[in-house]
Amino acid sequence: MKFGLFGGAVAKRGENTADSQGYDDFINLVLEAEDLGYNSIFLVEHHFTGGGQVSASLNLLTYIAAKTSRIRLGTAVTVLPWHNPVLIAEQTATLDLLSGGRLDFGVGKGYRDIEYKGFCIPRDEALERYQESVEVIKKSWNSEERFDHNGKYWQFDDIMVEPYTIQKPHPPLWTAAGTDESIARVAESGMNVLFDHFASFERTEERINVWREACAATGRDFDPMQIGLARGLTITLSEKDLEAALHQRDERVSKMFAKFGALPGLEKRQPESYSDPALDMEAAALIGSPDKIIERLKVLEDMGFKHILILLPDNIETLRLFASEVMPVFKESDTTNADAAE
Amino acid sequence: MKFGLFGGAVAKRGENTADSQGYDDFINLVLEAEDLGYNSIFLVEHHFTGGGQVSASLNLLTYIAAKTSRIRLGTAVTVLPWHNPVLIAEQTATLDLLSGGRLDFGVGKGYRDIEYKGFCIPRDEALERYQESVEVIKKSWNSEERFDHNGKYWQFDDIMVEPYTIQKPHPPLWTAAGTDESIARVAESGMNVLFDHFASFERTEERINVWREACAATGRDFDPMQIGLARGLTITLSEKDLEAALHQRDERVSKMFAKFGALPGLEKRQPESYSDPALDMEAAALIGSPDKIIERLKVLEDMGFKHILILLPDNIETLRLFASEVMPVFKESDTTNADAAE
Repeated sequence: MKFGLFGGAVAKRGENTADSQGYDDFINLVLEAEDLGYNSIFLVEHHFTGGGQVSASLNLLTYIAAKTSRIRLGTAVTVLPWHNPVLIAEQTATLDLLSGGRLDFGVGKGYRDIEYKGFCIPRDEALERYQESVEVIKKSWNSEERFDHNGKYWQFDDIMVEPYTIQKPHPPLWTAAGTDESIARVAESGMNVLFDHFASFERTEERINVWREACAATGRDFDPMQIGLARGLTITLSEKDLEAALHQRDERVSKMFAKFGALPGLEKRQPESYSDPALDMEAAALIGSPDKIIERLKVLEDMGFKHILILLPDNIETLRLFASEVMPVFKESDTTNADAAE
Repeated sequence: MKFGLFGGAVAKRGENTADSQGYDDFINLVLEAEDLGYNSIFLVEHHFTGGGQVSASLNLLTYIAAKTSRIRLGTAVTVLPWHNPVLIAEQTATLDLLSGGRLDFGVGKGYRDIEYKGFCIPRDEALERYQESVEVIKKSWNSEERFDHNGKYWQFDDIMVEPYTIQKPHPPLWTAAGTDESIARVAESGMNVLFDHFASFERTEERINVWREACAATGRDFDPMQIGLARGLTITLSEKDLEAALHQRDERVSKMFAKFGALPGLEKRQPESYSDPALDMEAAALIGSPDKIIERLKVLEDMGFKHILILLPDNIETLRLFASEVMPVFKESDTTNADAAE
């Protein structure tokens, strides 16, 4: 089983103007996470929030590439309708090249009203723009010959995109999917899939089964490393901690719903699972003692998940505890499997 | 007097596909240059060349930012008509933040047919697009409030661009200028100016005088650090070396003219200065023994140039020789001036 990270840095405008504390803290956390054995960082990208979320995710990942040697570098996700696909192909290939082939390129069509409005992109063009961009990016990465592209939104004439990517035929493409239809579409596309951290274990199990069936239907091998499952994590060492953690998670989820109306993979607030903290724990996040978390992860492992993306916690201590108390259990079983396969 | 570097990395598609040798060599050169006392690297950006020139210059500079601590990081230049100005503002601010305020942002409107064609941007829109982009970028960097932009080429609705830049009010903007008119326009704009490495010493002196007069006319202080003068450099330790170097430079300049028809700041091949290698040396480049180069640099210093950008040589040995044999002469005079000013 592999464990990665999922989240983003914050550098709020007007605060910390004398330094880059928010980004520095995030970078230091990733550097330590690499040492602790985490396998990847999937970095969120957002624009115009006023809250300091990372906007130039490929640039921040390129900086981190220079400071690390092993951890994989992902976006979760780059919203393609905001970007020129050829420039994105150049930037991602450059990151893949400089990192020695460590890019996991997560892409999406966006979901935040503030971003559609900000970039003046009509929401009803998003899917078409996304699809056209994926086509151009893949052609840009793969074509050894000059090519033209005459699309609805983008035109390029006699181009050849450089540099080359290290990973062949190209860096893995990832995208989020929540509904059965979208999961099947991603399986068919050849992309890897990201499942969100909001859905309950029950819904998450349904999703992996839909994925498994869709892979079978399109003749694609089922590879658990091509499925990234995001999960919130709070390790509690007492009953009091546990209560506080459940309460905090409930408040956060409510706040995000209030702000954005909907979240990727979850169309509306589900009071039956989120309003009751105890149910919430059972439903989605990894909250509790190390033993409880190990038990919960084994449930996910049994479903077929081998690639868990831990939602960035507030402090590095949680990642240290997880690495020392939880990861070794799954590392061992991983080694055993590898030996058995030889 | 300060000495920087000007040039780019190469990673040709189809060659070195197993590694990133071209970029690695370039990065190692910059790291050593920082140790040798070079003050800046101005990185060229080009697209679709098929020759492996750097396309994602801000990403490569962000990588270098992580490996260095002092050297300033410039583009020379980012051609604005190819880029979404808000995304560029985000990327440059991120680089400025991560590098601790070391960005020198060089911008231009482009000159290569292959790039206008590739991006399907009509050449006659280039100036307008450039001007609109500069306006949006500056507003993005500086605005503490949300703003709209309803331009001819770009529209943004209720945006706030993050992260903040470290340099205030914003990173220096640089642009190339060759004709008297364009030099005066840049002086008036508040931007810094880059003078090319093709123009003769004579023409270069005319240019700095135009700049000086234009600054006076618009009430701008004359600051030699706001003028970057690019120069080719070949240090020769024998007569034979000298002949070979002059011949090589002549061939290169001819080849570039044959390929691009015109070069920035120089509308057409000037046979009177470039066809004769001896004249060529006198006319533009720094070619010869260390003593000869010191003599030539003193001529430039007398004209008012204090910020020389050395065209990246083929090998690091030239930069080492320049650092050990030439730079100390000017460092001393620099220190003397600083002492005198205290």
